Amino acid sequence: MDDSFESLKIRADAGVLFVKINNPPMNLLGPVLVADLVSLIELLDKGDRYRVAVFSSADPEYFIPHVDVTKVAEYRHAAAKLTGEPSLALLFRRLSETKAITIAQIAGRVRGGGSEFALACDMRFASRERSIFGQLEVALGVIPGGGAVQHLARLMGRARALEVIASADDYDAALAERYGWINRALPDNELEPYVTALAHRIARFPQAALLTLKQRVNAITLAPEADFRRDSELFGEGFREGGEAKGRTAKLIKVGLQTRSETEFSLGRVLGELDNCNEQPR
Amino acid sequence: MDDSFESLKIRADAGVLFVKINNPPMNLLGPVLVADLVSLIELLDKGDRYRVAVFSSADPEYFIPHVDVTKVAEYRHAAAKLTGEPSLALLFRRLSETKAITIAQIAGRVRGGGSEFALACDMRFASRERSIFGQLEVALGVIPGGGAVQHLARLMGRARALEVIASADDYDAALAERYGWINRALPDNELEPYVTALAHRIARFPQAALLTLKQRVNAITLAPEADFRRDSELFGEGFREGGEAKGRTAKLIKVGLQTRSETEFSLGRVLGELDNCNEQPR
Amino acid sequence: MDDSFESLKIRADAGVLFVKINNPPMNLLGPVLVADLVSLIELLDKGDRYRVAVFSSADPEYFIPHVDVTKVAEYRHAAAKLTGEPSLALLFRRLSETKAITIAQIAGRVRGGGSEFALACDMRFASRERSIFGQLEVALGVIPGGGAVQHLARLMGRARALEVIASADDYDAALAERYGWINRALPDNELEPYVTALAHRIARFPQAALLTLKQRVNAITLAPEADFRRDSELFGEGFREGGEAKGRTAKLIKVGLQTRSETEFSLGRVLGELDNCNEQPR
Repeated sequence: MDDSFESLKIRADAGVLFVKINNPPMNLLGPVLVADLVSLIELLDKGDRYRVAVFSSADPEYFIPHVDVTKVAEYRHAAAKLTGEPSLALLFRRLSETKAITIAQIAGRVRGGGSEFALACDMRFASRERSIFGQLEVALGVIPGGGAVQHLARLMGRARALEVIASADDYDAALAERYGWINRALPDNELEPYVTALAHRIARFPQAALLTLKQRVNAITLAPEADFRRDSELFGEGFREGGEAKGRTAKLIKVGLQTRSETEFSLGRVLGELDNCNEQPR
Repeated sequence: MDDSFESLKIRADAGVLFVKINNPPMNLLGPVLVADLVSLIELLDKGDRYRVAVFSSADPEYFIPHVDVTKVAEYRHAAAKLTGEPSLALLFRRLSETKAITIAQIAGRVRGGGSEFALACDMRFASRERSIFGQLEVALGVIPGGGAVQHLARLMGRARALEVIASADDYDAALAERYGWINRALPDNELEPYVTALAHRIARFPQAALLTLKQRVNAITLAPEADFRRDSELFGEGFREGGEAKGRTAKLIKVGLQTRSETEFSLGRVLGELDNCNEQPR
Repeated sequence: MDDSFESLKIRADAGVLFVKINNPPMNLLGPVLVADLVSLIELLDKGDRYRVAVFSSADPEYFIPHVDVTKVAEYRHAAAKLTGEPSLALLFRRLSETKAITIAQIAGRVRGGGSEFALACDMRFASRERSIFGQLEVALGVIPGGGAVQHLARLMGRARALEVIASADDYDAALAERYGWINRALPDNELEPYVTALAHRIARFPQAALLTLKQRVNAITLAPEADFRRDSELFGEGFREGGEAKGRTAKLIKVGLQTRSETEFSLGRVLGELDNCNEQPR
């Protein structure tokens, strides 16, 4: 066990780095986890010891629920350590370019910035029974700022990306698979063995080919920095400016957002019931 | 009920505009329906009263069967009222940019320009039992001119778009879902409640976020005007010039095209049986 | 029967050219088959007699297993006859631009350059029971050089393309369909009748429309020549330069690669078990 990470438990085996996200009480994506991801990307960028990295969660109910909405400035500051810019989107884009092949092994809720972290990984396999996906941002009054617009529009096409993001609803793993949000949904008891075997398989292949492959596929599929940056700015502006995001977020926090509450557990449903009394037609 | 539309029945409820296409005898996309769509887009462009628009059909067998092939010049003229150009493709592209989130709630046959109308909407949900999809144009001797080439190539990829358009055949809702033609096929009795709930849910979210979302997704997924315009021109040229489109269309009209006949009901099959005796190898 | 092809059995019927790949002992894509494909593309380019070409295999177990890895220079030389450049990728890109609509009717193993041939066709239908797909190149130490990176990234999106190519594993037809590698998997006994009927159907439609359709869809979906050329160069460099490709290929040949052996039959599994003892971390 390596103790250089506060919110990640890591274990190395034959060229594969197994990374367990462990940021109690519920794996919120705040400054601590972002700082650890910065260090981890620096480690993977070296490209020598680890050819494949597998991300899973130590929390059975939450993979990453979303960003810590009370610490946007702080986690952005932590992200800037790597990229020079206070943007989660650009940090995640750098993750998509790191030398290791990255695999998200998903079980539990993965919404908002958590989904965007998973989308930045090279592959995503999810527990059919236990995974729930959502982009909640529009229900708060902002667009996803960490890359979901860029990735989902390319993975799902116009109509499904608009549905998923505009509905801000929960999607189960079977539907996430049909829409291309994830590579595949697997039965819960097969997920870890499957991903572990795949990771070891890939780690045995010549690394020069894996590096070239990733560069070639990224050149086709990874959106330009400017587009990630713009989404990130729009997200930030939405929270700062006189929009509804602050008010709606405050309301949600009052009913349990960011705690292990029914609000987080069934966030898709709760967001649909959030009233819009302080909105004005424009 | 609003009586400002001749071929649309509209009903507003809590920010959602429910639009029922009602253009007897069979919802052909001719000058009347196009003129009404122009007015409707102008209404949705205002962006104040309606955040979501849901399109359904008053005809249980036809959503929109296709354009009125005897009135191409006339419906193009009607489209030019909004865009300044006599092109259905450019009208539909404008629909994709309107401020409301637009949802096609599909049951019945939706072919040719009808499918292109649905493809211009932001989302498409269809009755599993009652929907039939088709792009019939190649069987007439032209390419789809209203945007299907642009949308299907991006939604389905090269091979499936070529299959669907080159075959000019009928596709059921389950296959349309697997190919990404629609968001999802739903059991007939669940379709309307599902779409209604989704529309109301989205309409409760802050509109600024929905507008930004649509702009960002369109920037990635909506083809340039020039490409829609070119498809539109090629379609028009095909009908005007010395090709086979006029003759093949005339043949089909003789056997019942544009009437509630077996020809329209099972158009995919009929197109496959149309002889090609007046064709010359080139 | 036409005897102008050494490795293809061709039969024409009503505007459809049925092409059976017959290059014993196992349909390797070597100089003979490539030379025949050059002649065939020249025939289809004429665009007069054949509107549709259907490719199937005379070998029940292999559609095309992959290129002949012992004759890379030779088959590239054969490809240059058509394009002026010794590149399989550019030859296949030309196939994607030929005037006929091309359909791959797949049964048996189709891996590496064989999969890339199928990906260059306009449509792909496969036997659900008998087809096996794979891109084996990364396991050898190179990236796919014949177009798979370009096609799969666009058909499947970033995550599934990376999975399929980085894993170098076998995929059955059902999964290939879910990932968009093929149009559809069909029951083995329905495959030939289905494709035959589809081919004849398309061949009865006006050719001008089919030609325009293909140009318009290619303009959207077919990657630039430069990108195919670059993948091709990277593949070639990988085999020539001091990488691991030569050694790993030699090992595989020792255990039966390019023969009707268990190695070829279950290549996905065998590649996963290939040791990496001569690799150095970099």
